[in-house]
Order: sequence, then structure tokens, then C-alpha cells
Amino acid sequence: MTETNNIAILETTLRALAESKKYVTLRDILTTIHAADIAAIFERLQEEDLPLLFRLLPKELAAETFVEMQQDTQEALIRTFSDRELKQIVGELYVDDAVDIIEEMPANVVRRILEMADPEMRRSINELLRFPEDSAGSIMTTEYVALRPSVTVQQAIGYIRKVGPDKETINSCYVLSPDRKLIGVVSIRRLLLSDDEATIEQIMDENINSVSTLTDQEEVALQFSRYNYTALPVVDQEHRMVGIVTFDDAMDVMEEEATEDMQIMAAMTPTDKTYLHSDVLHLFLQRVPWLLILMVSATFTGMIITGFESALAAQAALVAFIPMLMGTGGNSASQSSVTVIRGLSLGELDFRDVGAILWKEIRISLLCGLALGVVGFVKILLVDKLLLGNSDITIGVTLTVSITLLLTVVAAKIIGGILPLAAKKVGLDPAVMASPFITTIVDALSLLVYFGVATCVLRL
Amino acid sequence: MTETNNIAILETTLRALAESKKYVTLRDILTTIHAADIAAIFERLQEEDLPLLFRLLPKELAAETFVEMQQDTQEALIRTFSDRELKQIVGELYVDDAVDIIEEMPANVVRRILEMADPEMRRSINELLRFPEDSAGSIMTTEYVALRPSVTVQQAIGYIRKVGPDKETINSCYVLSPDRKLIGVVSIRRLLLSDDEATIEQIMDENINSVSTLTDQEEVALQFSRYNYTALPVVDQEHRMVGIVTFDDAMDVMEEEATEDMQIMAAMTPTDKTYLHSDVLHLFLQRVPWLLILMVSATFTGMIITGFESALAAQAALVAFIPMLMGTGGNSASQSSVTVIRGLSLGELDFRDVGAILWKEIRISLLCGLALGVVGFVKILLVDKLLLGNSDITIGVTLTVSITLLLTVVAAKIIGGILPLAAKKVGLDPAVMASPFITTIVDALSLLVYFGVATCVLRL
Repeated sequence: MTETNNIAILETTLRALAESKKYVTLRDILTTIHAADIAAIFERLQEEDLPLLFRLLPKELAAETFVEMQQDTQEALIRTFSDRELKQIVGELYVDDAVDIIEEMPANVVRRILEMADPEMRRSINELLRFPEDSAGSIMTTEYVALRPSVTVQQAIGYIRKVGPDKETINSCYVLSPDRKLIGVVSIRRLLLSDDEATIEQIMDENINSVSTLTDQEEVALQFSRYNYTALPVVDQEHRMVGIVTFDDAMDVMEEEATEDMQIMAAMTPTDKTYLHSDVLHLFLQRVPWLLILMVSATFTGMIITGFESALAAQAALVAFIPMLMGTGGNSASQSSVTVIRGLSLGELDFRDVGAILWKEIRISLLCGLALGVVGFVKILLVDKLLLGNSDITIGVTLTVSITLLLTVVAAKIIGGILPLAAKKVGLDPAVMASPFITTIVDALSLLVYFGVATCVLRL
Repeated sequence: MTETNNIAILETTLRALAESKKYVTLRDILTTIHAADIAAIFERLQEEDLPLLFRLLPKELAAETFVEMQQDTQEALIRTFSDRELKQIVGELYVDDAVDIIEEMPANVVRRILEMADPEMRRSINELLRFPEDSAGSIMTTEYVALRPSVTVQQAIGYIRKVGPDKETINSCYVLSPDRKLIGVVSIRRLLLSDDEATIEQIMDENINSVSTLTDQEEVALQFSRYNYTALPVVDQEHRMVGIVTFDDAMDVMEEEATEDMQIMAAMTPTDKTYLHSDVLHLFLQRVPWLLILMVSATFTGMIITGFESALAAQAALVAFIPMLMGTGGNSASQSSVTVIRGLSLGELDFRDVGAILWKEIRISLLCGLALGVVGFVKILLVDKLLLGNSDITIGVTLTVSITLLLTVVAAKIIGGILPLAAKKVGLDPAVMASPFITTIVDALSLLVYFGVATCVLRL
């Protein structure tokens, strides 16, 4: 059911069934579809058809589908729910999902949801809501399996069979001391493969990684992909266990963080709303500030060109190469910066690699610069001068452009490689150093180099 | 142990212990560290120290660490292994990890590894090696738990306890018909929470997603993040089960694909080698072709400028705004294209959204274009003309630049939003349509618009 065209076919079928009011068939089909797909289909329905179709879903599937929906659809649905319906949905939610939903809702909806939650869930939700956004505490769930070190494997399995239904996962069970400190972990696999009479203490893995409630979610996701965990325990300042983050949340974070990096690299304020669910004003506000900033900061390049106006008038051919030089500089810089930014995001690089990066970028940039300079020299003479017959182009101009290519590429790659590290060092997001920002610096620099070289070579 | 500075501290400690030959202490410390961290530390050691330290690791940890290492380090290590050592490591590997390693090795090393594998493993490896790179078949493992529909929960649990140690995961068990067709799935959780006497057939989930051996790994990863699976079954053309892909492989793929998209967006040939492990020549070859292509394609912008040389000579102030206009066009386009490319990668958008995207981009681009046009108009008159005293700037020039800003932003955003969809439609990677490629088109376009508007407004 994943392929989007399969979903499109399903959507057409469901729409037809809904129109001909064949609700029983509709319900039967819906129960065979994964909640994520139902949500995707429902998102595309008219808002007025949604409550009716949603009510066809069995309780558990309804809750799963609800979790997968976009925030504005969730909000619209809640407004159509009776108290009883809302209570049912909330009762089926895992605490971390409930918190995700609540975090995005307006206050009056939040109040209604909390009223409909049972007291224990309300307490857990309120607890989780206190953690800062994007922290491990805010994405964790409190529904995990805790074991005492002294019980036997058989007792533990019996206990898990009893409490399992309410836990988000039973794949990892956490061993806590009497004062709730985390002292080990046992996987369900280890439990099943161990002797019935062994104690948890004997089989648990004491060598356990945990994160603090305040750890940034990006760091949490990094641990998942580094260590291949299905769940990661979250502890408070006193190393008391308070919850777990599961791999599915970590996957969402990984996707979110990669999206965020790409948005920042493309000069946008990051947003976690999907494109189709963002209104035009939201997208406009996400994009226009950076366009304005970059437009205004291009004042420098304008000033540089104006300063060399008389030189450009004397050698009109120089103007035609400005876009190419600036483009090459920008591309060279973003190649290096994106490489380093991604390495930092994945934890493969850090500040102590600054020397290695610098040395590598110097050598790569010299090779690239030489290649571009030589190819540029030949291409300008053969294509621009001979083939296109631009008689303004002299050997001097060609040489000026080639030397500028070499110098610009070297400077661009070094700046592109080092600035993200510097940003990280002073606590900024390295991604802000990517394409547009670095490009603005490199643009100005390449013009300065160009006119500098022109002044020397052409004696302007 | 995740924070990179913790690893740095550990590295210093281990290095000191190695130098003072305190191997017992060293071994004790190593056994408390996660394989991924040991690999990270070992990668930074001198190549000659590596075999000695590696031999200190207990068998299982040694295999886990080996899997986490970079390909060139693995190769160097294998060359120092005796046959017995290699056999031990290979014996501890999961089939999918063995295949990952083998895929990157030169033929003579591959032959040695296969010789050291037991016959069953050799058969599995050879089978998996036949699948195309980046397909589900190439990343799956054949070590999964298969159950018959007629057995009871109790029998199934007994069976799992017996075969579990050799399986990559027991969290999901797959129910196969006598001819090995996949008919259902049972989670270990469901098993444990069910009645002992129930049959697998009664409790299994028949509503199961699977992928084919030839499904692209990007699609596989998308299914994981969409459906929150811990494992996904892989079937052949006759729907016979052949293996599973586990979530950790899917996470690796997600990271790889995001990295690949970013590399392509930044005009680089994608590579899965990490930066520090790539030699200069490799990185040079990854970067230089695109720089050359983009440099040569900038011939068009040069030609356009040359074509308007006399107009530019008459209105010298126009030249100074070229970089700003091209930059704004490029930034506007990459904002839209990156948004759409990411939406496509995450499965949130597809070709049938073309109308919605077009309509949204038109409205956003009009808003952005108007904002930039107005701010640009005021800024040029106040800053460039009055403050910086550039007397060449007339109302006509200002108007020309402002109108160009509006038109360029609109055109750039529409092109940026639509081209990735078109690429996807014809089977190209949408990411190739991102920044540098679109920028080249938009660069040429914005110059044409600029000179077109200038001709009208300034009657050149």
C-alpha cells in the first residue's frame, strides 16, 4: 500500500463508496489499511466528509490514524468530537503521542483533551509538557517496562505478559534499583533465550547508554543511528529513570533534522509543517526574510562593481564573466560547506578535525582551481573568442579570468570548509553557514579578487 | 559515551594504556564501550597499532566492532588476520553485515572471506550478492524467525527460544504457508500477550506490508518511517518470503539518502565514503565535473551580457545590480525546489500535486516578488543613490531593478517548484534539479528579464 499511486487508487475507491453510502464495505476496506495510509487519504478529503468517515474506524485504528494526521486536521476533528468520542481516542493514545498532539493545539482544545484523559494519563502528560521543546523529555514516553534486579526470568516474563498491553514497547526492559536508578537493560530476546531460573541481575546488560531529559533530540537521534537501538532510556539529573524514547520517534527526528538542515541551507526559516498543509502566508514568511537579507547584503557586491566602473568601461569584456566567476565561487564553497555540515550533523566530524579539513580542502581546492583555470582558459579562447567571435576578449582578459578562477576556488573552498566548524564552535547551527550566507561572502570576495587580478594583469 | 569529547577522552586513555602495555586494563575498559565507539576510536589509531588492540576484543565484540569500521580499515585488518581469526570474525557476523562488507572489498579478499565462511553462510552470502546494489535484496538478511500457522503460541515461543540466538531479530516473526508464501506476521509482544493455547493463525496479523527484493532501498526506508516498523519482510516475485530488512539498516539508508540529496543539491557526485576516509583525489573527482559543467554552461549568461554590452555602456549603473538580481533569483528558486524535493523524498508530495504546488508557488512568489520589489525600490533610492551617492542611479534604473526583482522571483519560484516534479516524472532524481542546475537556468532567465525590462523602461 505504500506506492503513492496505490494510495491514489484507494482514495478513488473510498470516495466512490462514501458517495454511494456503502459504509459497511467502506469500514471493511479501511480496517485492512495501515493507519498512516488512512491518514494520508483522509487528509485529502473535504473537511465536511471527514468526521463521518473517521467514525467508521474501530477504536484502536481510529486512535492510530488520528496520531498520523496533520495538526490542523486533528484540530478540526476534535472540534466535531463529542466528549465521549474524544475520551475514547485519548484513552487509546500513548502518552508521547498525546503530548505531541497537545503541544501544537490552542489552549481551549488542550483543556478539553486533558479533561477527557484519565487522572494517571493527565499527570504523565502534564509532566512531559514541562520539558523544553526538542528535548529528550519532550519526545519520550513514560510507558516502559521496569524490572527489579532480583526477580527471575520466569517471573519477569509473567510480569511482562500482565503489564505489556499498556507499554509502548516490551522489546527492551529496564532494570531499576529500589530508588528507581537505572542499573541495566534486558532485551525481550535475552529474556526468552535465558534460563527460566536465572535472575534479571545475572543476565542484564549493565553497560547501558542513556540520555538526560534535557538532551537535544538531535543528539538522541544520533545515538539511535550510531548504536542501532530500538529504545533509549531517559534519566533525570539523579540518574533516576523517567522514560524511554523509541526508534520510531528517533526516525521522525532524523527526518525532521535533515529537512531542517536542507531548509536552512536553502535560505529558509525551518518549519515542521508539511508543504501542502502550510498556508501561503506561512510559506511566504518562511522565505521572504532571507531573500530580503540576502538582497540587501548584495549591496556590497554592487559597491565593488561601482568602484571598478571605469575599469569595466575600459575593458568591457570583463563584465560578461562576472556571473560565471561568482557562480563558480558559490558552487565551490557550497560543495565544501555542505560536506562539512553533513559530517557535523552525523557526528563524523567535530572541531578537532579542523586541521585535517583545512589541509584536505587546500589540496582539493588547488586541484579544482587548476582544472577550472586551465579549462576556463582554453574554453574562453576557443568558444567565446574564436567560435562566438567576441573580439573584446584578449589574452590578458582570458588570463585574468583564469587566475581569478584558481584563486576564487581556493578561497571559496577554504571558507566553505572552515566557517561551519567556526559556527559550531560558537554554538550556532552550522547549516546557517551553508549556501546563501557563504555565497554572499564568496560573491564579494570573488569580485575583489577579479578586479584585483585585472588591475595587475591588465594594468588598469 | 556519545558526546564526541567523551570519545576523545577515552581515546587518550586507551592510547596511554597501549603505550604502557597495560593490556589487561585496556581489555577491561574496551568491553564496557559500545562497538560503534570502539570503531570510532580505532579509526583514529595508527594503522600498525590496530591489529594488536583489535585482538584484545572478545570474539563477539570484535565482530560487532569490525562491522562498524570503515571499509579501508576493514581491508587493512583482514590482511593482518590469520585464517583462524578471520573464520572467527566471519562466524560471528550476520549475513547482511557480511554482504555489506564483501560488496566493498577487492576480489582476493572476498575469496578469502568466502572460504572462511561455513557452507550455509557462504550460500546465503552468494544469494544476497546477486541482488542489485541499493535494492531491498541487497540490504536484507535471511536470518529471520518463520512460523507455521498451525502451531500454538506455546510451541512458537519454545521454537523461538531454540532458534533465536541465530536470528537477527525475534521482535517480528513471519507466518509462512507450506510453499513459503508470506501470509502473516506476529510480534513477539503479541505472542507473549496471547493465550498459550491459541494458534498462530488466530493471532497473526494478515494485513502485512512487504517489499520485493528489487524494491529500491529509498522506498524501503520510506516504509519504515511511514509505518514505524522494526522489520519489514522481503518477498520474491511469487510472494515467497526470502528475508527481512531491519530498522537499523533502514536508518542507515535514510541517512545515506539525505546525505546523497544534499550532495547532489550542492553539485557533487554522491558518495557514501565519509569525508575523513576519502582521499583528496576521490573528493576532487566528486566535485570537479559539476564545477566544470556549471562553468561552461555559464557561457549563456556571458553571451547575454555581451549581447547587451552597448546598453550597459549607456547605463553603467545597471551592471552593479547584476549579482544581486541573479543571487535573488537563485535563492528564490532553490527555496522552492528544496521544499519540493524534500517533500518528494519523504513521500509527502507526488506528481498529482503539480496543480496545488503551481498555484501555491504563484501566490507565494507574487508576495515575495512584491515585497522584494518594494523594499528594493526604497533601498536603492535611499542607500545606493542618496547614502552612497551613486549619481548614475536614476528613477528609471531603480524601477527597472524593482520590476525585474518581481518578475524574476515569480519565474524562479515557479521553475523551482515544477522542475523537480518534472524530473521525478521522467525518472530522474529530483535532487539534480536543485540549486546549481536550476540556478543556471534562473541566472540566464533573470538576465534576459533584466535587459528586457531595461529596454522597455529606459528605452535603450
